[in-house]
Amino acid sequence: MIRIAVLGCGRIGAMHAYNIAAHPRATLTAVFDINAAVATEVAAKTGAKVLDSVAAVLADDEVDAVLIATSTDTHADILEACVAVGKPVLCEKPIDLSLARVNACAAKIAGSAVPIQLGFVRRFDPGHRAVRKAIEAGDLGEVHQVTITSRDPGLAPEAYLKVSGGIFRDMTIHDFDMARYMLGEEPVEVLATASRLVDPALMEQLGDYDTLVVTMKTASGKQAIITNSRRATYGYDQRVEVLGSKGMAISENRRPHGMTLHKADFTEQAEPLLNFFIERYSEAFDAEIDAFVDAIETGVAPEVGFEDGRLALVLAEAAMKSVAEGRMVRTSEVA
Amino acid sequence: MIRIAVLGCGRIGAMHAYNIAAHPRATLTAVFDINAAVATEVAAKTGAKVLDSVAAVLADDEVDAVLIATSTDTHADILEACVAVGKPVLCEKPIDLSLARVNACAAKIAGSAVPIQLGFVRRFDPGHRAVRKAIEAGDLGEVHQVTITSRDPGLAPEAYLKVSGGIFRDMTIHDFDMARYMLGEEPVEVLATASRLVDPALMEQLGDYDTLVVTMKTASGKQAIITNSRRATYGYDQRVEVLGSKGMAISENRRPHGMTLHKADFTEQAEPLLNFFIERYSEAFDAEIDAFVDAIETGVAPEVGFEDGRLALVLAEAAMKSVAEGRMVRTSEVA
Amino acid sequence: MIRIAVLGCGRIGAMHAYNIAAHPRATLTAVFDINAAVATEVAAKTGAKVLDSVAAVLADDEVDAVLIATSTDTHADILEACVAVGKPVLCEKPIDLSLARVNACAAKIAGSAVPIQLGFVRRFDPGHRAVRKAIEAGDLGEVHQVTITSRDPGLAPEAYLKVSGGIFRDMTIHDFDMARYMLGEEPVEVLATASRLVDPALMEQLGDYDTLVVTMKTASGKQAIITNSRRATYGYDQRVEVLGSKGMAISENRRPHGMTLHKADFTEQAEPLLNFFIERYSEAFDAEIDAFVDAIETGVAPEVGFEDGRLALVLAEAAMKSVAEGRMVRTSEVA
Amino acid sequence: MIRIAVLGCGRIGAMHAYNIAAHPRATLTAVFDINAAVATEVAAKTGAKVLDSVAAVLADDEVDAVLIATSTDTHADILEACVAVGKPVLCEKPIDLSLARVNACAAKIAGSAVPIQLGFVRRFDPGHRAVRKAIEAGDLGEVHQVTITSRDPGLAPEAYLKVSGGIFRDMTIHDFDMARYMLGEEPVEVLATASRLVDPALMEQLGDYDTLVVTMKTASGKQAIITNSRRATYGYDQRVEVLGSKGMAISENRRPHGMTLHKADFTEQAEPLLNFFIERYSEAFDAEIDAFVDAIETGVAPEVGFEDGRLALVLAEAAMKSVAEGRMVRTSEVA
Repeated sequence: MIRIAVLGCGRIGAMHAYNIAAHPRATLTAVFDINAAVATEVAAKTGAKVLDSVAAVLADDEVDAVLIATSTDTHADILEACVAVGKPVLCEKPIDLSLARVNACAAKIAGSAVPIQLGFVRRFDPGHRAVRKAIEAGDLGEVHQVTITSRDPGLAPEAYLKVSGGIFRDMTIHDFDMARYMLGEEPVEVLATASRLVDPALMEQLGDYDTLVVTMKTASGKQAIITNSRRATYGYDQRVEVLGSKGMAISENRRPHGMTLHKADFTEQAEPLLNFFIERYSEAFDAEIDAFVDAIETGVAPEVGFEDGRLALVLAEAAMKSVAEGRMVRTSEVA
Repeated sequence: MIRIAVLGCGRIGAMHAYNIAAHPRATLTAVFDINAAVATEVAAKTGAKVLDSVAAVLADDEVDAVLIATSTDTHADILEACVAVGKPVLCEKPIDLSLARVNACAAKIAGSAVPIQLGFVRRFDPGHRAVRKAIEAGDLGEVHQVTITSRDPGLAPEAYLKVSGGIFRDMTIHDFDMARYMLGEEPVEVLATASRLVDPALMEQLGDYDTLVVTMKTASGKQAIITNSRRATYGYDQRVEVLGSKGMAISENRRPHGMTLHKADFTEQAEPLLNFFIERYSEAFDAEIDAFVDAIETGVAPEVGFEDGRLALVLAEAAMKSVAEGRMVRTSEVA
Repeated sequence: MIRIAVLGCGRIGAMHAYNIAAHPRATLTAVFDINAAVATEVAAKTGAKVLDSVAAVLADDEVDAVLIATSTDTHADILEACVAVGKPVLCEKPIDLSLARVNACAAKIAGSAVPIQLGFVRRFDPGHRAVRKAIEAGDLGEVHQVTITSRDPGLAPEAYLKVSGGIFRDMTIHDFDMARYMLGEEPVEVLATASRLVDPALMEQLGDYDTLVVTMKTASGKQAIITNSRRATYGYDQRVEVLGSKGMAISENRRPHGMTLHKADFTEQAEPLLNFFIERYSEAFDAEIDAFVDAIETGVAPEVGFEDGRLALVLAEAAMKSVAEGRMVRTSEVA
Repeated sequence: MIRIAVLGCGRIGAMHAYNIAAHPRATLTAVFDINAAVATEVAAKTGAKVLDSVAAVLADDEVDAVLIATSTDTHADILEACVAVGKPVLCEKPIDLSLARVNACAAKIAGSAVPIQLGFVRRFDPGHRAVRKAIEAGDLGEVHQVTITSRDPGLAPEAYLKVSGGIFRDMTIHDFDMARYMLGEEPVEVLATASRLVDPALMEQLGDYDTLVVTMKTASGKQAIITNSRRATYGYDQRVEVLGSKGMAISENRRPHGMTLHKADFTEQAEPLLNFFIERYSEAFDAEIDAFVDAIETGVAPEVGFEDGRLALVLAEAAMKSVAEGRMVRTSEVA
């Protein structure tokens, strides 16, 4: 049994905590949150102990590994501290909003063999993963175009948006990782365009965007297209499509059930798309914990690691620069 | 918290036990199995205590309610005993293979207010339930035809088939209940035809069938059609369709994810249908426990009760008689 | 070029006439209708000549073959006359409403080598045909269950219903043929149930039914299920499904285009099912003419011939007897 | 009856000729091709006369209108000549490969009231059109993102590619028009990226591309994304999707029939996507002729006219410039 501590018991942290508690090869040994009440609530339902500081967690011999779900600005520090004491880390994305800070962190942990897994949960979605497996099996031949449609059901609260680091670092970051996962080759050119259509006034005020397209190209010419919107009124739209030289694969949207109503003037599915990420990616969140436990048990490096987190951020930086300057930006300009 | 004991820790009993343990308003307080080892295994993972007899469970003040998942031939006795001590019951189907025994049981518990819920889990499937809700909402108008396609992925083991009571009582029983759920009116005429196509030799030996069609009609002329096969090589085929005077609704089959592969000569979904009932009806099994807890907490009679179990068995008897005699059988002939 | 005359220029006859005119290997050489005006209209658009009697058509040397789309009560007489003068026939279903008359006709034309094709157009539907091809290719293994859902969008006019011969001979007749096409073995037992739900008063008056289920079994135990309704408010519902020992194939309903609208509360296809048979089976009507021209050119007997028309009528008789007597009827009782 | 002459009887011209011949309100009065044999063949099947020059067609009083399907380099000259003699024109795209020539043509015909319709046939596809109608009906609210997936089943012959004007002017031109149709506002910024992945050697030699992405933005920030490939081995991939502030609509790919095969390890549709444009857009080609006849009869300007052809070419020029210079290009730079 791998004994895991969860740091940060907000919505995502609590979900991870319950998943760990239910995992057959892991136990939730401890929880921490700066708001003790929320940590206490999770502890009550799981039998975990509440620790009152990150330091206490790091010092605890009953903690084999740490899941970091605290606020973004604390990720890099905690991650470095965990590596220092040799505790494997599953860190929610992003590592940090600043590429410089991430690069500094990378330098600090360089050479360490402590397993670090990044929380790019979508890689573990059964549908998206099946697309990747089709690529690996050669069913698609050479990858030519990766098309990612990724739209949230609605704008996050203003308070969250203010500290999110902007749509590219907060939302597109998942899609940058998905593009890399499917391309199998690093993008070197980035072209992006962004608009303020969902809430123009708020976006203007934040200096942010709510609707965007990113196009990327690898050295060999493979292309990836990301389409983002902060508000798809019809639900959480999550599709990944890969065109290859021998075929094409799509991971489609999903619904909670398959009831279809046929009427004189229409045929309808009244049940919306699975909504929001906790529902849509529930199997993926389970599989992510599974992979983390595997990595710790086997000593094999996690499939999605620190460098994946860093490279997604590089793409975000390039995309922001492309929007700002109205031109194609090479990743080498920002890396 | 409702404290529930699970009797019988085989595949289905164990599943129920874990669902109860994870339920927010219920706890698994005790388990029993004639094979102590399997009970102990469930207890170890859930913190429940192991009791060594049904009598011990019935006598235990810490047991608020009982889930019966023991072998079919014990259901009626245990059910009567639970009612006698006032413990609410969730009883796996069927109540008994003998309609006479079920009728005797009905007589014995008549007048009792102890909640009894029958394990017709498919009523709780989100898709099937959405069809029923469409009927209740008037979206379909008057119900004209209910079509139920229900095919197992493969033959159950011979040992199981020998004690199953035959396909009508073991497998079609769920579909009889589903037909009643959708018709909203009791079938009064039953026509059935049955074949031995999947494993003719075994079926001949057992005096059983593996492939059948049942057609039923209510007094007002509403029709229900059940199509059963013991082996659908392509997966667990579970569809329910209702034609009404104003529209039609279908609850379609479901898959674990939405990846589709497009090749030159075909487009395929390589992932099979959800398979078998524990996977296909996982939300329904959760919702069934939920409904049981609701019934106990509110005192409102369970949506699916003892009489539903009895009436499904009446339809099974009528269908068997129809096959044997090559004619339409009225339910009044067997009830 | 095969020179074809069309007898009867009502809705179906006129459609056939235009299809023949547009066929690359056939010409519409003559048309006849008891209402000269409708024949003249078709002639004006196609360049065909109008003949003023069936006799004139039969005597015309420029007529290589005849398509019979006159009223049902004339089919058998005209068919016999065509055979007598050696002109190949494509005859709309049914041959006659009376099985005795059909049997007499069969006796009269026995031994003739003149090609006779029956108008069971659904055999030529690309989707249904693909199911049959899957069977022939062995993809399904042995056929176990054939399920045919066949529902008209609405009640035909009362005047038509009065002379239709009843739902079994008029509507189900197509499904009896489809069942035979898919089973690949003759049904020997027929069980049917029928209701008056769509227009009870009219059905009572006509002694007819509007909603029915027929179950059939072959000697080896293969089963076929036909579900009919005279009114599916949601469109013309035409599905064929075959369960075999190795797989299952479905020919699904079709729509005129693939636009889907995703809204907050529903996802809908606003375009109805293809509706009615002239639209739904348009490719099939073309392919049917193609097959007729092939049969004439090659001398190979048409895929669907006189005996297919007769056997479908036998099944209709058996089904009607089953409803009347509330029992399983063997086809040998009515054949 | 509108009497139409078809100039150019290659694959597309011949198809148009047969559609006109079958149209209820039009007749094919004359055909011309520099290869007299192909014109004669079309004439033989339709009764049209063969004329031996464009001049003869223009001078013919029996020609009410002209469909131009000759080689691209003759389009502008013939179009000008038709306008000069007052004959309405349906001109296949593109008007010319040179924007300068198109602008000159525009200047020459300025002020003329002769109906000119451009052959952007996809606007008439029932599915794509239903998306547009959903926009017009307000079902989608404000348009935010238009996503067009447009992939040919395979590379055109090298001889064709050499004179095609390149992928942007030859293939993407349809998608530029579709984007304008759906956006309802002119794109002002164009970002494009292009690769040589399908046949790198040939593309290098031609100075052309086979795989590309174009992103466009209107003044108000609406976005359109076009994804093109010269080879989708799985068929002719033609999808149009529009995200709006209130919903989303997709026009999906289409198949010739709805047969689905369910096997143990996969579920497949063996029938490919409708392939190629003559099959996929067959209803659209009919509707295009219909719209042309309407425009002539009513005097209302065609829905898709000369300026639409010119503006699509402007977008092609901007996209090519964007690829060449690695930057966002404003349409005002090339218009």
